[in-house]
Amino acid sequence: MKNRKHQTQSRAKTQRSVFRPFKRRSKVGGLPGRVRNHSESEPTVLNILRFNETFFDERVDVGWHAMDGPPDGPDHVTWIDVIGLGGSKIIQKIGDRYAIHPLLLEDIVHTHQRPKIELIDGRLGVVLRMVQQSSPLVSEQVTFVLTGQTVISFQEREGDVFEVVRQRIRRKLGSIRSQGADYTMYSLIDALIDAFFPLLEDYGRRLEAIEEEHISGSDSESQHHLHVLRGDLSQVRKIAWSHREALHRIVSEASGTVHPTTMPFLRDCHDHTGQILDVAETYREIASDLRELYFSHLGQRTNEVMKLLTIISTIFMPLSFIAGVYGMNFNHETSPLNMPETQWRFGYPLALMMMAIIAGGMVFYFYRKGWLFQR
Amino acid sequence: MKNRKHQTQSRAKTQRSVFRPFKRRSKVGGLPGRVRNHSESEPTVLNILRFNETFFDERVDVGWHAMDGPPDGPDHVTWIDVIGLGGSKIIQKIGDRYAIHPLLLEDIVHTHQRPKIELIDGRLGVVLRMVQQSSPLVSEQVTFVLTGQTVISFQEREGDVFEVVRQRIRRKLGSIRSQGADYTMYSLIDALIDAFFPLLEDYGRRLEAIEEEHISGSDSESQHHLHVLRGDLSQVRKIAWSHREALHRIVSEASGTVHPTTMPFLRDCHDHTGQILDVAETYREIASDLRELYFSHLGQRTNEVMKLLTIISTIFMPLSFIAGVYGMNFNHETSPLNMPETQWRFGYPLALMMMAIIAGGMVFYFYRKGWLFQR
Amino acid sequence: MKNRKHQTQSRAKTQRSVFRPFKRRSKVGGLPGRVRNHSESEPTVLNILRFNETFFDERVDVGWHAMDGPPDGPDHVTWIDVIGLGGSKIIQKIGDRYAIHPLLLEDIVHTHQRPKIELIDGRLGVVLRMVQQSSPLVSEQVTFVLTGQTVISFQEREGDVFEVVRQRIRRKLGSIRSQGADYTMYSLIDALIDAFFPLLEDYGRRLEAIEEEHISGSDSESQHHLHVLRGDLSQVRKIAWSHREALHRIVSEASGTVHPTTMPFLRDCHDHTGQILDVAETYREIASDLRELYFSHLGQRTNEVMKLLTIISTIFMPLSFIAGVYGMNFNHETSPLNMPETQWRFGYPLALMMMAIIAGGMVFYFYRKGWLFQR
Amino acid sequence: MKNRKHQTQSRAKTQRSVFRPFKRRSKVGGLPGRVRNHSESEPTVLNILRFNETFFDERVDVGWHAMDGPPDGPDHVTWIDVIGLGGSKIIQKIGDRYAIHPLLLEDIVHTHQRPKIELIDGRLGVVLRMVQQSSPLVSEQVTFVLTGQTVISFQEREGDVFEVVRQRIRRKLGSIRSQGADYTMYSLIDALIDAFFPLLEDYGRRLEAIEEEHISGSDSESQHHLHVLRGDLSQVRKIAWSHREALHRIVSEASGTVHPTTMPFLRDCHDHTGQILDVAETYREIASDLRELYFSHLGQRTNEVMKLLTIISTIFMPLSFIAGVYGMNFNHETSPLNMPETQWRFGYPLALMMMAIIAGGMVFYFYRKGWLFQR
Amino acid sequence: MKNRKHQTQSRAKTQRSVFRPFKRRSKVGGLPGRVRNHSESEPTVLNILRFNETFFDERVDVGWHAMDGPPDGPDHVTWIDVIGLGGSKIIQKIGDRYAIHPLLLEDIVHTHQRPKIELIDGRLGVVLRMVQQSSPLVSEQVTFVLTGQTVISFQEREGDVFEVVRQRIRRKLGSIRSQGADYTMYSLIDALIDAFFPLLEDYGRRLEAIEEEHISGSDSESQHHLHVLRGDLSQVRKIAWSHREALHRIVSEASGTVHPTTMPFLRDCHDHTGQILDVAETYREIASDLRELYFSHLGQRTNEVMKLLTIISTIFMPLSFIAGVYGMNFNHETSPLNMPETQWRFGYPLALMMMAIIAGGMVFYFYRKGWLFQR
Repeated sequence: MKNRKHQTQSRAKTQRSVFRPFKRRSKVGGLPGRVRNHSESEPTVLNILRFNETFFDERVDVGWHAMDGPPDGPDHVTWIDVIGLGGSKIIQKIGDRYAIHPLLLEDIVHTHQRPKIELIDGRLGVVLRMVQQSSPLVSEQVTFVLTGQTVISFQEREGDVFEVVRQRIRRKLGSIRSQGADYTMYSLIDALIDAFFPLLEDYGRRLEAIEEEHISGSDSESQHHLHVLRGDLSQVRKIAWSHREALHRIVSEASGTVHPTTMPFLRDCHDHTGQILDVAETYREIASDLRELYFSHLGQRTNEVMKLLTIISTIFMPLSFIAGVYGMNFNHETSPLNMPETQWRFGYPLALMMMAIIAGGMVFYFYRKGWLFQR
Repeated sequence: MKNRKHQTQSRAKTQRSVFRPFKRRSKVGGLPGRVRNHSESEPTVLNILRFNETFFDERVDVGWHAMDGPPDGPDHVTWIDVIGLGGSKIIQKIGDRYAIHPLLLEDIVHTHQRPKIELIDGRLGVVLRMVQQSSPLVSEQVTFVLTGQTVISFQEREGDVFEVVRQRIRRKLGSIRSQGADYTMYSLIDALIDAFFPLLEDYGRRLEAIEEEHISGSDSESQHHLHVLRGDLSQVRKIAWSHREALHRIVSEASGTVHPTTMPFLRDCHDHTGQILDVAETYREIASDLRELYFSHLGQRTNEVMKLLTIISTIFMPLSFIAGVYGMNFNHETSPLNMPETQWRFGYPLALMMMAIIAGGMVFYFYRKGWLFQR
Repeated sequence: MKNRKHQTQSRAKTQRSVFRPFKRRSKVGGLPGRVRNHSESEPTVLNILRFNETFFDERVDVGWHAMDGPPDGPDHVTWIDVIGLGGSKIIQKIGDRYAIHPLLLEDIVHTHQRPKIELIDGRLGVVLRMVQQSSPLVSEQVTFVLTGQTVISFQEREGDVFEVVRQRIRRKLGSIRSQGADYTMYSLIDALIDAFFPLLEDYGRRLEAIEEEHISGSDSESQHHLHVLRGDLSQVRKIAWSHREALHRIVSEASGTVHPTTMPFLRDCHDHTGQILDVAETYREIASDLRELYFSHLGQRTNEVMKLLTIISTIFMPLSFIAGVYGMNFNHETSPLNMPETQWRFGYPLALMMMAIIAGGMVFYFYRKGWLFQR
Repeated sequence: MKNRKHQTQSRAKTQRSVFRPFKRRSKVGGLPGRVRNHSESEPTVLNILRFNETFFDERVDVGWHAMDGPPDGPDHVTWIDVIGLGGSKIIQKIGDRYAIHPLLLEDIVHTHQRPKIELIDGRLGVVLRMVQQSSPLVSEQVTFVLTGQTVISFQEREGDVFEVVRQRIRRKLGSIRSQGADYTMYSLIDALIDAFFPLLEDYGRRLEAIEEEHISGSDSESQHHLHVLRGDLSQVRKIAWSHREALHRIVSEASGTVHPTTMPFLRDCHDHTGQILDVAETYREIASDLRELYFSHLGQRTNEVMKLLTIISTIFMPLSFIAGVYGMNFNHETSPLNMPETQWRFGYPLALMMMAIIAGGMVFYFYRKGWLFQR
Repeated sequence: MKNRKHQTQSRAKTQRSVFRPFKRRSKVGGLPGRVRNHSESEPTVLNILRFNETFFDERVDVGWHAMDGPPDGPDHVTWIDVIGLGGSKIIQKIGDRYAIHPLLLEDIVHTHQRPKIELIDGRLGVVLRMVQQSSPLVSEQVTFVLTGQTVISFQEREGDVFEVVRQRIRRKLGSIRSQGADYTMYSLIDALIDAFFPLLEDYGRRLEAIEEEHISGSDSESQHHLHVLRGDLSQVRKIAWSHREALHRIVSEASGTVHPTTMPFLRDCHDHTGQILDVAETYREIASDLRELYFSHLGQRTNEVMKLLTIISTIFMPLSFIAGVYGMNFNHETSPLNMPETQWRFGYPLALMMMAIIAGGMVFYFYRKGWLFQR
């Protein structure tokens, strides 16, 4: 009993809960379009990259003074990477400087938005979710704002999947240095969406492991793992679904903001989200199937246990009854009719033989019924 | 037995029923477009706020005489907050004064409408549901009518989520005082919809608690809580769905009534309902998964109980049988073949040893089968 | 055994079957657009109401001669209420007189149509289903034909929900006397659809009762009631769905036939069908949830029964085995090793004590395991 | 054991399999648009009807020479009924003569197409499925080609549902003789679709029988019947769905080929398919519900069996234990503490009384628990 | 125990896992539109067919030098069949020569794309999946590029379903030699899609076998087969779904690239994918139904086992109790009340008779209850 309890508790500790309750940071009834300082948000730092085909300038970890100078000209692309949403002043300042609509600014700091796009006054805002950790699934909100030749990205905290894009810019790989800000934004979105594929591969491996456990019969914990996995897949599906929606809207509505040559690339991103959606849905189906398979295994095992109990009972109950009969104390001295078998010369061997015949008959019956030596 | 019954009864009392049967107040076949006095409705009181950038006037708890003066001019916004739908005369009077269509007026007093909008003759009527209590979920119908620079809100009873809006108007926070009546209506709708988020957080916490119970094994009541929770989530989903529909229709159809600058704000509300919908659906899925997990736990436990019974039976039935055999009364005096073992010097120790070997063999068998010391 | 069988039979009699197999009266391959006499249909009688603001004339239970006079002028509304579809001649005559398309005429007499509208040559035909009885759900087909200032309603049999409309016309309540035939048709449709709400309230009460039974544990019959209820709700949902479709088509397509001022009223009817659909779907979901709850209760109870059996077996099997051992007849006279305990002074008390210790240990084990005094 | 096996085998023989594996006759990679002779197809015969209002000519069982004459003029309708698809030459000849597109010709002979329409060069091809047998569901492909005043129907084999149409043409019933070829095609489609209604009635009766079995408790085979029925309903639903799609496309796209006066009739056919779809879906839902009801019955019965076992065990295990105790052989002669009860005057009656009290207590306990004389 | 373990292991080996985890070859964050050499890809070889009505030239297994000559003229069709995607240089060269968009080129080498089409600058790219093996389902990606009179096909590895098309071209069967490159592409797509039908036939046979096992009762492994089959069907459905989407887009968007006379053929392909989708979905439904049927069988069997156990216990427990009673050692010498039956003349026969009556009564009870000789 004790170690069972202990086991349960330790299970409760080691197994993470699938459930991460929804929390929305904004106060109910807060002013729309107002940026507030969230104490739990990380402080804000800026990384600024400026580049064109011939020119490259990277400033890391600068504060809000970097925003003081004159606006960037159209002759080069500026990527302002805002990390940490704690600095409401800086964010407000960026918002003012680039004329970002207050509602979009509110969405940027109130993370837990559904992925979506906002297209106001020729400024394109894209809210997406970037995966950070696969198991348990942790994602953070990333917002891109495209205005003129400037792309601004807002991340919740340090650590992202954009390093490949930075390398491409620094080392002048591919055509990114010769294209506009919309292409930079596409590259960032592409990196963000591609980061879902290793996640799916990880889920695939975990599903495979659970299936392996099912087949080998050691599935005591697998139901819980499956439950956790289904929760993660459900979230991935939801995210992929709204990513897909958002990218579809960019492709169909943002033709004034995004250059036609960049469009095929964004359409490609859109196709990738469709693929993520497909895989996540297939995985959920497989997980459901595995659960049903588990139920059928469980039913079969209960059935087997029952059969064993029934075999044992059916064999030994009649035998014990016979032994009981000859254990009765009827007095054969007062009457020759009282248990005369006990006085016979071959009484005991006959009784044992009878028992053996009954037991053998039962065994043969269960053998014919297929309950023995078979599954 | 007795305390079990008692327990069941008290459970029936303390556990609220998930089910609140649908009731529609209107008499079947009543006259369309006619406002009647509902005895169970609360009496009607009016709160009237008049304001523009420079001017502010609040009149609380006024009766229907407040409706007698000349109509409000277009130089300030008027928000008439009608609380309690019992005063059919006042409501009829407001309807006449602001030329509200009889059908809309009927919808206002016949609560239990599906959220929707009515757009007749440039007057926008929006029927929504305001959450009042999370568990059990209680909501009331709130109807907004926007006509010119006047917005009228009809609430079923005292207590609302609009206090933040009132504060913003009184203290001149944000831009609400400098905008038109459509922005005021948006602010009210926004407050109403934002009030769903704490509700979802509460449901999230409850789901988490149920999952915790599942993992720790103390899930005797959790199925009932889950059932109640699923009922609430189902209602929230239905409400969010029709809110979404209604807001979509405002955004796409009410362009003549709502100012273009207010539109992005309403679109934002629309996005929030989508988010509520998403979370409610995800929660329902998690609740379904938890139920399945519970079934698999229940099946496993029944299996374990069966195994214990089978182990006990399989060990003791053969032993009892052997004891029974040597308890038979075959007379060894009449024949040397009758139970000679009972006369042996080591008969009893041998019999005990045989029993020990059988018992040990069974235990080893079950150990190898994995039924002992494991789960 | 006997009374069980009896009980089952009587259950079969008292419980109505959920299932009313689909029957389509028309012979397969019958001529399209031909009205035939259905022997099982009720004989046809006509009620004719003629009215305008100043004039009112009601003729009840008239035969087909009432159709002989000159056609009704446009200065008043004529409502011909055809009750019983057995009189094929009368119906054919009406069809000829008002130029109803043969296919619509066929739909009128071949009840079991899906609710729908037909809009041919400016004549609007609306096929709906009127609820007659809630449990078991019985509905009949009602067809409205609107042509000029005449509205014709075809009912399958006596008894309808239109009495409130008749009263309104007779007593000149509301504006029905001052409006056209399209408003009369709307009033009839509204009465027909409003009659679904008491039905839903009844279903709500029944669901509540079943839930109450579940919670109090006396749910032996509830599964069957739930099955019946689900069948009824499924039908209501199907009907509401096609009503909604039909009304949607009237609102969007019949603008030439229905006056613009009547349109908002029909749109209101359309909203009501949406509400009926919502409630019916919510109820179906709740019914599904209740079934799952029942399964979890059943599983728990089976588990409890198993536990009781296991407790009893685990306690008494070892005890009986010990009693059996000391009931063996090994002869202690031939050998001091044979059952010396039986000769000890404290043999019997020690044996009883051993039994008590084993039983107490088992009880303690089950108590720790939580199988006693808990649920 | 033996007769059980026998029973199972005979069941396997008498119960038909629900499953009729999909077979597509065409060789993979065959030439598109090429008609080949299928050895398994029936030989082709032609029935030709020519008629207009005044003229009627029927030629039965004619060969391909009937195709040699000059083409039919526009003054009468020609219905060529092609029965059996084995005569590839004749079919090719008809295809050439009436300029049927090779792909449509391929679809005609490669049965197992999804119902659909082809509209190429003003020739309308309609591929539908005609029901032949209800249980097991057997259907054949019927293709109609409408070109000018000629309608050609291609059937897989002898036996159809078109006899009513032939009678109507021969006896000049209805308006078919005075209408064009499109009306003839409509009449054939209508007959084909109406033939689904008796099928549904048959399924209805079978579902009712299964429900009756469930209620009366004799449901040993009902699960298999339900499985078969669900398979059939699934197929009917699929067919009705694509019929509906095909008819919808005729109504919306074939306006150049079909006369406007025939359109309402085809729309009526379209509505009928909707009705078939509705009924088939409702039946599938009812079948699902019945399966769930069966599971709850099965669970209840297992529970009852368990209760009986537990009652018996709980009553007799303690009694047998007591009997076992007094069957022990402790020697009361060596010690007065050894089983003194056996020497008492009232020892035996007291022991029996104790047993009776224990048994009565158990019975009372189970009675209070509601396990006796209830259900 | 041992052989059971062994059996399980061997099962794990012989049964393939349903699950093939998703793997995407491209490195996350790779440069968009860049072709890289995949070490695991097969080396690239080219087969080039050039033909028109009078001319035919086939070059097999040529290297990338075959791409050096001047481009192909519009007077004949060129089909370049690229097998193996390992030769990134060749593929890049082909891409440059035919101006294939970098993204399409990326999709070609990054297999595991979702089937789709790309239509950029009058070049049509079609990504499809070709089935290679049915059980386990293995498919490879095939990309067609149509540009002018050249069609290029990219296959992952050796072995395809295009042999029939090659034969048709070589032997001048059908009209393929007299049509353009779009018709060649259609022929290839048609061959690819037709290859799904034998797959479905195979699945049909496997489902039939599983159903047969269910009916005959030997369904120990069938649940696992069903699980595998459902996984395969799920994939086929997903593929067919996106094939359908891709073909729909060709038919509706590629009108500038594909000749109008080829369109009906592609529409036919589209219909075939619909058919594949239908069959795959029907099969999944049947598989679900079979699983439910299995659960009901399992439940019935458990119930039967329980009944047998209960019958045996109910018969032998009272008998053993009676035997136990008369095995008690109450001393009839100390009191005439102690077990006087044991001294009666007919005590033993009466006791046996009583046992026989009890056993007979129990058997009769279970016979009436229907637990014997039935099912």
